[in-house]
Amino acid sequence: MPTFDDIADQLATQAIELPSWAFGNSGTRFKVFGTPGTPRTPQEKIADAAQVNRYTGLAPTVAIHIPWDKVDDYAALREFAAEQGVALGTVNSNTFQDDDYKFGALTHADDAIRRKAIAHHLECIDIMDATGSRDLKIWLAEGSNYPGQADMRGRQDRLQDSLQEIYARIGDKQRLVLEYKFFEPSFYHTDVPDWGTSYAQVSALGERAMVCLDTGHHAPGTNIEFIVMQLLRLGKLGSFDFNSRFYADDDLIVGAADPFQLFRILVEVIRGGGYGPDSPVAFMLDQCHNVEDKTAGQIRSVLNVQEMTARALLLDREALAQAQAANDVLAANAIFMDAFSTDVRPQLAQWRESRGLPADPMRAFLDSGYQETIAAERVGGQQAGWGA
Amino acid sequence: MPTFDDIADQLATQAIELPSWAFGNSGTRFKVFGTPGTPRTPQEKIADAAQVNRYTGLAPTVAIHIPWDKVDDYAALREFAAEQGVALGTVNSNTFQDDDYKFGALTHADDAIRRKAIAHHLECIDIMDATGSRDLKIWLAEGSNYPGQADMRGRQDRLQDSLQEIYARIGDKQRLVLEYKFFEPSFYHTDVPDWGTSYAQVSALGERAMVCLDTGHHAPGTNIEFIVMQLLRLGKLGSFDFNSRFYADDDLIVGAADPFQLFRILVEVIRGGGYGPDSPVAFMLDQCHNVEDKTAGQIRSVLNVQEMTARALLLDREALAQAQAANDVLAANAIFMDAFSTDVRPQLAQWRESRGLPADPMRAFLDSGYQETIAAERVGGQQAGWGA
Amino acid sequence: MPTFDDIADQLATQAIELPSWAFGNSGTRFKVFGTPGTPRTPQEKIADAAQVNRYTGLAPTVAIHIPWDKVDDYAALREFAAEQGVALGTVNSNTFQDDDYKFGALTHADDAIRRKAIAHHLECIDIMDATGSRDLKIWLAEGSNYPGQADMRGRQDRLQDSLQEIYARIGDKQRLVLEYKFFEPSFYHTDVPDWGTSYAQVSALGERAMVCLDTGHHAPGTNIEFIVMQLLRLGKLGSFDFNSRFYADDDLIVGAADPFQLFRILVEVIRGGGYGPDSPVAFMLDQCHNVEDKTAGQIRSVLNVQEMTARALLLDREALAQAQAANDVLAANAIFMDAFSTDVRPQLAQWRESRGLPADPMRAFLDSGYQETIAAERVGGQQAGWGA
Amino acid sequence: MPTFDDIADQLATQAIELPSWAFGNSGTRFKVFGTPGTPRTPQEKIADAAQVNRYTGLAPTVAIHIPWDKVDDYAALREFAAEQGVALGTVNSNTFQDDDYKFGALTHADDAIRRKAIAHHLECIDIMDATGSRDLKIWLAEGSNYPGQADMRGRQDRLQDSLQEIYARIGDKQRLVLEYKFFEPSFYHTDVPDWGTSYAQVSALGERAMVCLDTGHHAPGTNIEFIVMQLLRLGKLGSFDFNSRFYADDDLIVGAADPFQLFRILVEVIRGGGYGPDSPVAFMLDQCHNVEDKTAGQIRSVLNVQEMTARALLLDREALAQAQAANDVLAANAIFMDAFSTDVRPQLAQWRESRGLPADPMRAFLDSGYQETIAAERVGGQQAGWGA
Repeated sequence: MPTFDDIADQLATQAIELPSWAFGNSGTRFKVFGTPGTPRTPQEKIADAAQVNRYTGLAPTVAIHIPWDKVDDYAALREFAAEQGVALGTVNSNTFQDDDYKFGALTHADDAIRRKAIAHHLECIDIMDATGSRDLKIWLAEGSNYPGQADMRGRQDRLQDSLQEIYARIGDKQRLVLEYKFFEPSFYHTDVPDWGTSYAQVSALGERAMVCLDTGHHAPGTNIEFIVMQLLRLGKLGSFDFNSRFYADDDLIVGAADPFQLFRILVEVIRGGGYGPDSPVAFMLDQCHNVEDKTAGQIRSVLNVQEMTARALLLDREALAQAQAANDVLAANAIFMDAFSTDVRPQLAQWRESRGLPADPMRAFLDSGYQETIAAERVGGQQAGWGA
Repeated sequence: MPTFDDIADQLATQAIELPSWAFGNSGTRFKVFGTPGTPRTPQEKIADAAQVNRYTGLAPTVAIHIPWDKVDDYAALREFAAEQGVALGTVNSNTFQDDDYKFGALTHADDAIRRKAIAHHLECIDIMDATGSRDLKIWLAEGSNYPGQADMRGRQDRLQDSLQEIYARIGDKQRLVLEYKFFEPSFYHTDVPDWGTSYAQVSALGERAMVCLDTGHHAPGTNIEFIVMQLLRLGKLGSFDFNSRFYADDDLIVGAADPFQLFRILVEVIRGGGYGPDSPVAFMLDQCHNVEDKTAGQIRSVLNVQEMTARALLLDREALAQAQAANDVLAANAIFMDAFSTDVRPQLAQWRESRGLPADPMRAFLDSGYQETIAAERVGGQQAGWGA
Repeated sequence: MPTFDDIADQLATQAIELPSWAFGNSGTRFKVFGTPGTPRTPQEKIADAAQVNRYTGLAPTVAIHIPWDKVDDYAALREFAAEQGVALGTVNSNTFQDDDYKFGALTHADDAIRRKAIAHHLECIDIMDATGSRDLKIWLAEGSNYPGQADMRGRQDRLQDSLQEIYARIGDKQRLVLEYKFFEPSFYHTDVPDWGTSYAQVSALGERAMVCLDTGHHAPGTNIEFIVMQLLRLGKLGSFDFNSRFYADDDLIVGAADPFQLFRILVEVIRGGGYGPDSPVAFMLDQCHNVEDKTAGQIRSVLNVQEMTARALLLDREALAQAQAANDVLAANAIFMDAFSTDVRPQLAQWRESRGLPADPMRAFLDSGYQETIAAERVGGQQAGWGA
Repeated sequence: MPTFDDIADQLATQAIELPSWAFGNSGTRFKVFGTPGTPRTPQEKIADAAQVNRYTGLAPTVAIHIPWDKVDDYAALREFAAEQGVALGTVNSNTFQDDDYKFGALTHADDAIRRKAIAHHLECIDIMDATGSRDLKIWLAEGSNYPGQADMRGRQDRLQDSLQEIYARIGDKQRLVLEYKFFEPSFYHTDVPDWGTSYAQVSALGERAMVCLDTGHHAPGTNIEFIVMQLLRLGKLGSFDFNSRFYADDDLIVGAADPFQLFRILVEVIRGGGYGPDSPVAFMLDQCHNVEDKTAGQIRSVLNVQEMTARALLLDREALAQAQAANDVLAANAIFMDAFSTDVRPQLAQWRESRGLPADPMRAFLDSGYQETIAAERVGGQQAGWGA
């Protein structure tokens, strides 16, 4: 088994993108609870995100969501972020909150509405040009609630047409990343429900179109690490949306529901060349902190990913390969579990200190008084949420 | 197989309670779409509900939700409903939208909050006294999102304490009905997640405490008609919340996702003595019309239940019993499917006309111009939704 | 809505292939129950299958399984089938019952075992040449039970290599059809677990490599008709394995668990050009009659498919398209449900009689005394099952 | 957080019962692979089980299965076990392999068959008297495959009658433990499908009737630790059947699929008084080693349970209670995860050595040559499996 020293340099390359919206309020259809200190502006979200990076060194970029993070001057926003010590990352489009999109956007049978949705994505690419973002991430809420409601085939064809138009505008160093989701907010059919559909759609576009895998967007029981393996094999894994779930798209803190699954995913990422500075795979969070503190929740999240990455890097791949070749089921599984069972927290603490980071980032953040300060200062205004 | 005439009288006893909130706006955490004509007041909801009964003769009562349907004068509301041709039915409590209930209500460790939640239920019983309602329905959104967050055992004990206090206030002709739900809005543990828990909790209360079975509140693959059978056998099936689902608690129109499941449930209801004027089982709808018209959606819903009830009543139980006794699997299944395969729509149309109802209630409603009228008249004000 | 007469000719083109193994014994890991009259030889299986066609006119071909249906002279078997009034259809390979395949076959890391598995498939193609079969169907039981046990990526690459060799041997008028399955008999990872994997694998082979969709091989909640639509759109739906399930791969009679789902699937088949004499889609059954009579069970199965096909053909597609275009959710759903709610049994009975078939094929078969005859005659020998 | 020393004594009380059948061959409906050294007799199974206890000190008893472990002289078998250093434990009945039980046993409508099944259980109690076993465990494979096939209500009533007769024969120091299972081998309805049914059935019997919770017998997504909590609260948790699963009743090694779930279950066991010498809860394994070595697989299993028990005992319950009381979600979860993240393997190794056990039981067993010896010696005869 490699030692922690063996993997220290690899750990140093880890970068996890934070979603600006995780710092706003979120909840369920039943209730969205507000909390003191919740950001009111894109700038305040970025400021909070920068705290995560400050204490962990793991989160150098912040993904933004249009129109939630719309500003007049994106160059200024980019500069603001830089001042906070972070950069702007992926731009996420939104076609699920305009009344026009009730029955679809990029798939809509009404050409006027479909063109409006395409135009929104072109605007997002303009923003990417201004922010210096590489990735346009498209998650589509589109689908239908009742059998017969929609012509699924026609929608699929129109989706491809729409994506072709958007892709044509993507720059040479930019990418289009298409997310899939099993269900919700549509409850009968979803237009991009599985990795196969996303793969088929982006394959028809071109090289700079990739699949985004959100870890919470699968049917019960799905072997997610298998999909990771397959998409890396096919050269089409563009990014992760990390979170965790017990039931549906619960959007809990990554690693909270099934840490062993997160470990298995990361093992497969590394095995397939998806980890490291040359990898095309972007690691993002996409979570909801419905009941817990948001900035602290994000800190916990990136630490969970780091911890499982360290365990995955510690896997003794040579010994594993030998046991696999011998079909020694118990030995192979034991080697696999040995890495997972290793408590990397003490060594990660030392490693952090050696790099000028606090040994216990959560403690350091909580002690900093930041949360209390923003709770006191951010009075009035409209707390950010999914609607604004 | 019985003829339609044989079952006509039984069909006449069917009564399905409508939820006032189904006439307000609903949606997902991503978006709630509004529609022209959506009620602004409890009265407007009741007026819409009365339309459903007018055209179908199936929906003589309307369930209300407190505080969404709070009014100053419940006697007046009762009278208003009577004028519309309907009565007020089940009173539903709400402990999921007050900031105090973020971490629980009837289960809360903080006694002050728990007492507030109990007091809310006592107020609901006061309202029941005023409206003449029989049933207090309790659905609890309580639970936790993360392992370790909550002491599940302590919460279960406090829940029993709280229910004891509420039950003590229930009148001799009133009932407490406790709903269970697999998950949502809590994503790790839910305090009343399954029929077993609801059954154990209400059994400890007394005879007038029953279980409410919401058809959308089960784990994937659950055989719901088995639970119907078991609760009827145990004498504890108090009511249904009808709806349907493909995935989670989708709250689609009852019978829309799996009509055969609805048929099987109704077969078991009838077999277990849960159908008819002397049955203790209340049939309610609990649905969301996120993308379809609301009043028309409710009409469709009660017609679906009626249609499947008719098919279930047509089941040749004697022949079935013989085939079952002979372990003739294919014959028994064929007898079962024969009832399900029977198209009862033409005979139901005649049956309606013979009772002074329109043969095609949906057509009659759409032709009535009611929807256009309310869309034109209900301008301004705040459309009702889950928050008000 | 079309009339039954409008669709009569289309119904006449329906052909459903029967699996020879459905006439043998099957069961669970807990017990396989035998029944009097169960075939002992491939010939007896074919004779039983021919009964299904005799009474329904729906099942002109019989799929065989190698080695279960191995004979010395396939030309003679072909002739025997012809005498019974049926033809031999798809050849199914088997790589899950040889001790060598405990840890894989086409994916095995040991080249000797992998070559053995490839050779088995080449032998199957030889048999196809002799039987005149068009399709080689490959279902792979391969996978692993424990995390770490297997190198999923290496296996995927070897699978492609193996398939390339097999595909190279496929004749110009033959096809390779690759089935996928969510899980079982492997319980951690399966090498072809979803349509996306099957699609990626066969797309890399060529035009005559297609996907086989077994209706019982999906995760809970999967929208199967969506996959049907997508594979037809991509030109890669080769065949169906029809059956039904409540839980896992239950292999129940098609249409028994969720007749509405079968209807939706058939609607999408027709919409996507997958129905009719020019369609590339083969309709097969793949079921287990663990507790019911086998030949009668197959009759029930093909009648279920026919009944739902008739309902699907009756769908008023023009009206549906209009309602869809108008985003009239309830109207579109109502048009869809009208077709599903139509009881086609009386007209199907007449249609059968007009073609010289018994109005009630099940009754005719039961009255024929065939089952009693084979029960009396087939004494001694080894009843066919999954092992022989 | 407690230290390992604090929990050392508690660990010493752990006893996990092994199932004799885990040492025989098992598999799926597709194939059962045999392996050299597989026991041919109950004695050989017990000898293998004794190896597990010899190297781990964790498995002092062996559960037997009737008729698989039928012998002429149970007193002699008891003595044989004692010589091997173990005792005989729970007696498991079997009503799923006799042809008479095809359509039910304790639920059968035919009284003769039902009486036969009752008699089988009375015989099991006779055996318990001879072996000194405390628990009669009843798992019922009963159910149906098709809607309409069976009268679920009648079966439920007959089940209660049958259990009453069996319970009447249970000795004062004996117990009846009723297992539930979601599905399989029945694929439509199962007569005891959930904890609620088992609880209702055993509650009607009396104090010495309890529920058995098999960790693989739940619907997808079920929160099993909640059920553990509830059954302990209701005083009805009699025993565990430990194993793990990704999909259905996969019967994998306990802790292999989701170690965090096993941890959560054990936390709730301890919290509810289910751990320790005075607890009424029996810890059993019930697994299948389809592809891995059996005795080694059982060693791995008991070590997994021990490891997670140690982590669960290390949980800082006081700190957790404080964080819970403060509704500090992240702090409570962090305390919970701290225990789970602790690598107890080095300390467990020391602890073992201090008790005269090998630090690495697996290594010691593999080095002992036992497996090679039995592979060489156990030649000829019929390897034990689920059928013999």
